[in-house]
Amino acid sequence: MLTSLPEWAQLAVHARRMALPENHLKYLITQQHRLENFSLLEAGLFYDFSRQRLDADVLKNLIDLAKNRNIIQRFQEMISGDLVNTSEKRAALHTATRSFSADPVMSNGLDVMPDTRRIRDEIRQFSTDIHSGKITGANGELFTDVVVIGIGGSYLGTEFVATALQNHADKSIKLHFLSNVDIDNFGAIIACIVPETTLWIVISKSYTTAETLANTNLVINFLTEKGLYAKNHIVTVTSKGSPGDDPANPVLKSFHMFDYIGGRYSVTSAVGGVPLSLYLGYDRFEEFLKGAEEIDNHAISASEGENIPLIAALISVWNNNFLGYPAQGVIPYSFALSELAAHIQQLSMESNGKSVSRNGELMDILCGSIIFGEPGTNAQHSFFQLAHQGRPFPIEFIGVVNPCHKKYTNKSKGVTNHQELWANLMAQAQSLATGKEDIDKAKSFSGNRPSSTLLINSLSPANIGRLLAFYEAKTVFEAFIWDINPFDQYGVELGKIMAKDIRNEMAEKNKNPDYQFDNRDPVRKFYLDVLFNHKI
Amino acid sequence: MLTSLPEWAQLAVHARRMALPENHLKYLITQQHRLENFSLLEAGLFYDFSRQRLDADVLKNLIDLAKNRNIIQRFQEMISGDLVNTSEKRAALHTATRSFSADPVMSNGLDVMPDTRRIRDEIRQFSTDIHSGKITGANGELFTDVVVIGIGGSYLGTEFVATALQNHADKSIKLHFLSNVDIDNFGAIIACIVPETTLWIVISKSYTTAETLANTNLVINFLTEKGLYAKNHIVTVTSKGSPGDDPANPVLKSFHMFDYIGGRYSVTSAVGGVPLSLYLGYDRFEEFLKGAEEIDNHAISASEGENIPLIAALISVWNNNFLGYPAQGVIPYSFALSELAAHIQQLSMESNGKSVSRNGELMDILCGSIIFGEPGTNAQHSFFQLAHQGRPFPIEFIGVVNPCHKKYTNKSKGVTNHQELWANLMAQAQSLATGKEDIDKAKSFSGNRPSSTLLINSLSPANIGRLLAFYEAKTVFEAFIWDINPFDQYGVELGKIMAKDIRNEMAEKNKNPDYQFDNRDPVRKFYLDVLFNHKI
Repeated sequence: MLTSLPEWAQLAVHARRMALPENHLKYLITQQHRLENFSLLEAGLFYDFSRQRLDADVLKNLIDLAKNRNIIQRFQEMISGDLVNTSEKRAALHTATRSFSADPVMSNGLDVMPDTRRIRDEIRQFSTDIHSGKITGANGELFTDVVVIGIGGSYLGTEFVATALQNHADKSIKLHFLSNVDIDNFGAIIACIVPETTLWIVISKSYTTAETLANTNLVINFLTEKGLYAKNHIVTVTSKGSPGDDPANPVLKSFHMFDYIGGRYSVTSAVGGVPLSLYLGYDRFEEFLKGAEEIDNHAISASEGENIPLIAALISVWNNNFLGYPAQGVIPYSFALSELAAHIQQLSMESNGKSVSRNGELMDILCGSIIFGEPGTNAQHSFFQLAHQGRPFPIEFIGVVNPCHKKYTNKSKGVTNHQELWANLMAQAQSLATGKEDIDKAKSFSGNRPSSTLLINSLSPANIGRLLAFYEAKTVFEAFIWDINPFDQYGVELGKIMAKDIRNEMAEKNKNPDYQFDNRDPVRKFYLDVLFNHKI
Repeated sequence: MLTSLPEWAQLAVHARRMALPENHLKYLITQQHRLENFSLLEAGLFYDFSRQRLDADVLKNLIDLAKNRNIIQRFQEMISGDLVNTSEKRAALHTATRSFSADPVMSNGLDVMPDTRRIRDEIRQFSTDIHSGKITGANGELFTDVVVIGIGGSYLGTEFVATALQNHADKSIKLHFLSNVDIDNFGAIIACIVPETTLWIVISKSYTTAETLANTNLVINFLTEKGLYAKNHIVTVTSKGSPGDDPANPVLKSFHMFDYIGGRYSVTSAVGGVPLSLYLGYDRFEEFLKGAEEIDNHAISASEGENIPLIAALISVWNNNFLGYPAQGVIPYSFALSELAAHIQQLSMESNGKSVSRNGELMDILCGSIIFGEPGTNAQHSFFQLAHQGRPFPIEFIGVVNPCHKKYTNKSKGVTNHQELWANLMAQAQSLATGKEDIDKAKSFSGNRPSSTLLINSLSPANIGRLLAFYEAKTVFEAFIWDINPFDQYGVELGKIMAKDIRNEMAEKNKNPDYQFDNRDPVRKFYLDVLFNHKI
């Protein structure tokens, strides 16, 4: 068991020590060479963890824990195609989707790279044909709108990357997301597209996700009403041979995805590749992949002490299990990164919100954190009151050294907007750490509130790839430390089973208006009556 | 002290009792008349708290606590204009902005209602003149775009309401938010508007908020470049006599706001009134106000046991301080309510993320919760893995009985999209509560995870007003129970002071490129060098 390791016990001793008044962050950060000793610049990322509540002894102890658990070796096994998704007996090869190495990646005795390369080629060809007008909608005009039909991992990563790279989107294509089964999501989208020049991308590995199927059915109906056909206006990203890859129901093109890529890790596969290449151009998508590949290479090759995602994961575990913080804020000081937190929320909480070890034993500690965030400085004017004076939570700040729009250098209070943004980014990390005493308790700040700061140079495709792969590797490293499986999600199954049961009763009532809802469950009956009577 | 009240001590005893296996939610919810006993239908809202971890004794004890604290009387004092914002010696009269009563509301010896009515009249007149074309931009054409320049409480509530009522926006006006000081926010907006038909609304009570001023300066510069003038294209919502209400700097129109309305409570004042009336039409804004007024009247007149926002606040305190949950999810099963959580996050965390009582004493308990959320069913496919099998947190589900887009009744698996949405809403609350045993621990669900469900009949302006006022009243009631001041935000001040200091050093460097950054703080120097060298 993790908690019976000597390194774990020793960390608990350190945690008591770090709680002493003399180890308040306001003192720690004044130590000589604090920043040099607790920051890393590797693979295009700068990671400053000098404002975390740790010292050299804690860091060494955390690294010893990682070594004891053979964390980097396990990451290498993942990248090499081992069946690290033990409960589902699958590999987890999202890293293969951004590998440009000539080496094979063997999984279950097969090299996955030929498929990976073929699909990248298909995406390149398809997006080029769409942009050139070789493939058009029914009326022969260039496509103007692309709608992704998918939910969870089938759109959150793509939405994050598309938003982050919005300034590179010069293909005259607008990107929309039909993720919510709420009919008002569909209604809002069809109100702002032209059916004849709209391409729909249905993304579902199994092609059985209820919400995605319901929305796809609506869209097929809509196309039919407009005299249009799926074979001109729908593409699918799905498993080979799924109902979305069936010649009996022809579509414009099917791109394959594989069981060794989980939804929340799928942005660099066809799931992100098809919409992002249409939106940005294939070349930019490939630059994005290459940035991600660089971090993967860093994560398997850097030693524990120099491994940015591994150090970040160790700090998560330290904050979570030893310092007792239940949540983490993800606060990018960048408008373009406004969807980052929503993606990391899924990536981290769905991967690591678990209560059993990889071997199926109940954990004796809580894994996973509640992840939330908004961009700065907006977050400062929203919930940072609580961050400074209420219930503390660690924060990951993200800074971008250069903005996209460089020509507006108008100054207010002597600084540009970008400088104003950075003045705040710097001030927040500092003030959370140091705090400030005041005789008036209402104006006192207890400080000692930890944060990290991650910097990228610009909002380039490669840097967004780095950011994505950093968070993926961090998430997986956390799981490997806890020895849980970050690639399954059995926790979503019970709700699906119960929803099916309720859906069946609704369908019964739809067929037979005289049907009376089963009153053995009065709560269910109450809600169904409200829904079918259209009023509370 | 709160914690020395007998009701508080008794609640701690109840909490230990509720932790017993026989009080697992799966048993509690099967009690006879559970739903009738633990739900309320009042003032157009249905609030079901039958899946909270409480029973009749706990509820009675919570209500006794509210009575002991005279909570409803304090709410009445707030509405009557008492200086309930004790630290800043101000009233908190957001409720007056939606009062249509003929009665005066006296604050500091003055009736605030004449000003309130005058401003509503000005908003009605102004929005009517914009819609009719009586007021146009420089080229004489109707305005097509409205950009709100404001941050925090100056836009989050408006964004929530505008998104929720998007289906009622038939005035051919698009609404944008320039909230982030990041230059890329400005860049993105000017890329999609026509300057000649764009109206900018600067919202800042003091007109000194650094981010808002920086963005306003950019906009004025931009207008000048285009040969346009503030007097035709900018309106302000600000305090009387502020720099934004100065005849020396003429603007198209200034609407006043007052020190007795805090930013996060300001949606029903001119802060929300001006943009929402332009976007939706004044009549819909007034319907929205009347829905909010109905909840205010409910909150002051209903007894403790029948008072929906008060019961919701008591449950928050119970979950927070007795059952130990640090966070709350806000999960609306509605695409249009996608911005609700971001607004409530500010409203609740900025109001109640405090560590001192109203009298300036350090609290001996943690107040405030971390609030986060995404719409369902999207949230299910994102972070609900953790909600079901990881670290538990209570959830507030919100359901809308009737969707906006009613004409799409296409069925998938026998149900409409709206029914599918409801099947999931119902299934989630049930499965979180009951859980499910399985020999395979990875497929086991511990259950006992609390939730409430709030229903509104439709996405009408009045119902969105009800929802808004419910959360405002809930937040204030929580604060009154804890005896903290929900109307100040001293926690944001330290960061501002430190940012000013950093900004001054940046301004110095802007003036004098030879300036060397002060190396007494090597961390600050490092970040400033990165920023000015444009690379990590």
